[in-house]
Amino acid sequence: MTDATWHGGAAAVATLTFDVDAETPILAAGRRYADHLMTMSHQAYGPDVGVPRILELLDELGVPATFFVPGWVAEQRPGLAATIVERGHEVAHHSYSHRAPTSLTAAEQRADFERALEVFDAQGIEITGHRAALWEATTTTLELIAEYGLTYDSSLMGDDRPYVLGIGDRPVVELPVHWSLDDWEQYAFLPEPHVGSAIESPRKVLELWQAELDAMRHYRCLFNLCLHPFLSGRPSRLMAVRELLETAQSDGDVHFTRCRDLAAAAHADPTLAPRNPPAVTADPTIYPV
Amino acid sequence: MTDATWHGGAAAVATLTFDVDAETPILAAGRRYADHLMTMSHQAYGPDVGVPRILELLDELGVPATFFVPGWVAEQRPGLAATIVERGHEVAHHSYSHRAPTSLTAAEQRADFERALEVFDAQGIEITGHRAALWEATTTTLELIAEYGLTYDSSLMGDDRPYVLGIGDRPVVELPVHWSLDDWEQYAFLPEPHVGSAIESPRKVLELWQAELDAMRHYRCLFNLCLHPFLSGRPSRLMAVRELLETAQSDGDVHFTRCRDLAAAAHADPTLAPRNPPAVTADPTIYPV
Amino acid sequence: MTDATWHGGAAAVATLTFDVDAETPILAAGRRYADHLMTMSHQAYGPDVGVPRILELLDELGVPATFFVPGWVAEQRPGLAATIVERGHEVAHHSYSHRAPTSLTAAEQRADFERALEVFDAQGIEITGHRAALWEATTTTLELIAEYGLTYDSSLMGDDRPYVLGIGDRPVVELPVHWSLDDWEQYAFLPEPHVGSAIESPRKVLELWQAELDAMRHYRCLFNLCLHPFLSGRPSRLMAVRELLETAQSDGDVHFTRCRDLAAAAHADPTLAPRNPPAVTADPTIYPV
Amino acid sequence: MTDATWHGGAAAVATLTFDVDAETPILAAGRRYADHLMTMSHQAYGPDVGVPRILELLDELGVPATFFVPGWVAEQRPGLAATIVERGHEVAHHSYSHRAPTSLTAAEQRADFERALEVFDAQGIEITGHRAALWEATTTTLELIAEYGLTYDSSLMGDDRPYVLGIGDRPVVELPVHWSLDDWEQYAFLPEPHVGSAIESPRKVLELWQAELDAMRHYRCLFNLCLHPFLSGRPSRLMAVRELLETAQSDGDVHFTRCRDLAAAAHADPTLAPRNPPAVTADPTIYPV
Repeated sequence: MTDATWHGGAAAVATLTFDVDAETPILAAGRRYADHLMTMSHQAYGPDVGVPRILELLDELGVPATFFVPGWVAEQRPGLAATIVERGHEVAHHSYSHRAPTSLTAAEQRADFERALEVFDAQGIEITGHRAALWEATTTTLELIAEYGLTYDSSLMGDDRPYVLGIGDRPVVELPVHWSLDDWEQYAFLPEPHVGSAIESPRKVLELWQAELDAMRHYRCLFNLCLHPFLSGRPSRLMAVRELLETAQSDGDVHFTRCRDLAAAAHADPTLAPRNPPAVTADPTIYPV
Repeated sequence: MTDATWHGGAAAVATLTFDVDAETPILAAGRRYADHLMTMSHQAYGPDVGVPRILELLDELGVPATFFVPGWVAEQRPGLAATIVERGHEVAHHSYSHRAPTSLTAAEQRADFERALEVFDAQGIEITGHRAALWEATTTTLELIAEYGLTYDSSLMGDDRPYVLGIGDRPVVELPVHWSLDDWEQYAFLPEPHVGSAIESPRKVLELWQAELDAMRHYRCLFNLCLHPFLSGRPSRLMAVRELLETAQSDGDVHFTRCRDLAAAAHADPTLAPRNPPAVTADPTIYPV
Repeated sequence: MTDATWHGGAAAVATLTFDVDAETPILAAGRRYADHLMTMSHQAYGPDVGVPRILELLDELGVPATFFVPGWVAEQRPGLAATIVERGHEVAHHSYSHRAPTSLTAAEQRADFERALEVFDAQGIEITGHRAALWEATTTTLELIAEYGLTYDSSLMGDDRPYVLGIGDRPVVELPVHWSLDDWEQYAFLPEPHVGSAIESPRKVLELWQAELDAMRHYRCLFNLCLHPFLSGRPSRLMAVRELLETAQSDGDVHFTRCRDLAAAAHADPTLAPRNPPAVTADPTIYPV
Repeated sequence: MTDATWHGGAAAVATLTFDVDAETPILAAGRRYADHLMTMSHQAYGPDVGVPRILELLDELGVPATFFVPGWVAEQRPGLAATIVERGHEVAHHSYSHRAPTSLTAAEQRADFERALEVFDAQGIEITGHRAALWEATTTTLELIAEYGLTYDSSLMGDDRPYVLGIGDRPVVELPVHWSLDDWEQYAFLPEPHVGSAIESPRKVLELWQAELDAMRHYRCLFNLCLHPFLSGRPSRLMAVRELLETAQSDGDVHFTRCRDLAAAAHADPTLAPRNPPAVTADPTIYPV
């Protein structure tokens, strides 16, 4: 650790990420929900109301961010990805349809992965990183990332610092996520499809994330926060994000960066040895189910 | 936004709404629950104990409110709607039976919608607005609202300010709701039918709503609070509502109004352009489930 | 309300009740759990460790309480009910087997109800009140209570003050309960059978109950607290109960009483008119499910 | 109680225990999850990142602990158990595969139990105690513990002080656990397999455990804390554990010990009479399900 350079001397590195899922996670749970107007409007709030408000906040605070956008969403809202990039942020790959890779065949995963790349290519958006839908990456997911020359993935949980995945010939940096740094588990609620069962106070969520950031400054980790515009774009939740960011800025030792820039720093860090993703063999005589 | 007039100059507009569901959501989940005395009494507490206590509080504070009442409930308790109107509040359409429109055919939706109108017509209650049962509106729901000349709906989540739905020839104002401004997710608990899994402290709920109201004053939004008399009519929960209202009154820049009055102000606001509800087409080759 | 006498002039009346369920709710969920040692020991903790500790606390504070004991539990632990009565508390009827009456035929309900009475009769324990297992009373439950001359039930939620049930010829007083004044929803957790999904801090629970007691002093209600020795008998939870009781005692206007004594006061109150339990008729053409 | 010696005069005895489950609980829920990389990495974080960080903290504070390690985990990570023992801590039996004994035949339980013993024997790790996977011990589990001469089990909940199980000829001490002193219910979250539905703030968890420790000092109990490195090894959660330990150390009357040492003290305590585990007979005429 003592020679590591990925953090550039900061106590903690913070990547502020927004998963602009819009309607996709709901449609992936059931095509019929397209006719459920409340549910669709609940999701549309994300790109339509949340994203503009978030961009305004980021401008005001001067914080760069990364927006993971499913190809379907970029296609349905043609100006969305370009606007984000024009404001100085990164747009990254978040599948085409937001179906979990673990629920698809390898061929379906490839088709979905490539279709998203085509959408962004057609829109002139340069993509260098990936986050799996529902974070449910498979070995195929990682192979596609390496094959297409992306520099990082952000879907796994094997550490709380960047690490290098040894997939095929090219190194891919993993920028690990965690359930506790995601707004979904704190705020998401829908009865059908069933999503979440509690709605927490932004005060509690701020306390949770603030404590983790403070501890990560102690342990020198990556604070990789995952927010959803349809959730954290709501007024009081965004005010909590503002307070979190302002506190981190006043701490003075937290470095905010886009995922692609952190990935570049991690690739350049000779202390990050390749670590294969866990290859678990489950013996059916031991685990028969 | 700068020319908008719907808010009348207030920092935030607050509509205090009560869904007087009584037994209907439970009967919609299963007719057999009519014989479960505890469950029925749990629901009956709403109109029988909660509503009188709520009306007393509103009188004391001078706050106008809107009561969404299923037709079945108005029919079973003949004096209920009239009493609410006599106290200066609004009674609005909340379906007849509280079955989710998304679970009904178009013909069933029409029959349920019209039957509620007949009940209120027979009781001399003038209806100008609607909220879908479980907020589960369909396109048919919105068409019925326009067909019958109601001025507003309050079931969708596409924004946190009023907006105009472009349905057929007549404009209908949407007064959007949200899960985080509903007491159901915070307080409701029944093992059978399974409703809720946690019972929050009124202190937490007050913190949640107070934070949203404060942030909505910052962003100039509609604070559309949805309460259920069988839940928020309980002593300590009503004390929390009282504290919320008193704080808002002392803020001096929050305007309390009935939904119908806000809908009229929104209809008169030339800056509110019609916005169609999200018309999502989900391609079965992408979303096969 | 002004002439009511049931409260004896106190701002709020508090009935501290303990449901000594032991293994019964688990066995009712599945006989096979008898072989799950952890689960059985989790339930046995109630009568074996919780009850002695609770009795000690009640002695120390001089607070009378009511213990609802299933007949099966009294039978399995022969000295339990007698010890409770000797310490000055009330033992009341809580079914024989703790199966929900709503899941039994009328004949099964009668057999279960009478078998519990036989157990207490054989042990010389005088029974004057009843609480349904899982609070799931049916009309048959109330008829049995009236038939056997018990003076009260404590299973329904139609009010937050005592009321009189008009069942048959004899009046029966209802001492209403509520989910928010039950420790089960706050503390209970078992993966199999699935019971609960969160374990709250006693600090939060104390806040919840303290707020309700304070508001009930404002509205002059019955604070009918339902505790389970296997849950609230744990050290920090019992300390929270102690704090609640000590605060109530220092308030000076809360009257603690056994259910049977409150029922007697309610029977003697001429202002409590008979109110039938909700007789809900659910039309199958409206509620087809 | 007055003559008891197991506590050595301390107000409370604290056993800090870590269940190093790694991938096993997930594989036991479904072998297919071996291909879910995020889930596997989420579990691998425990031994790979959590355990080293925990060992460092324990060194710093001088607190001894007990690590319950499934045989499969010890086998997959050959140096893990030895490292723990070298740092002065105890490694104890936590099944081979982490399948619940209640879901296995007696023969399967024996095979799983013995296979774990063989792994530890081959690694030169001396085992003296046991904790059942998921705490789901059966009578067979206890008989195996006695047969193989282990001195204690730590899976049941019949008390909050050590007690002696009367199994066969040899006494086995039970060091009881409880759901409220486990980090799983507070922190664990996975959508598939479904694990947990809320992620609590370490501040709330610290409050919960601190209150229990304080009350256990009042009642002189065993504070048997169960932590999982994949959960409590996360930065802010480990900081909360640190704060809990430091407070306990500054209290001056809490004795930290390894389970095996406490078991020895309990065996030497003549006041701990054998208590059979609850032998519950559930009559099928009463409990037909």
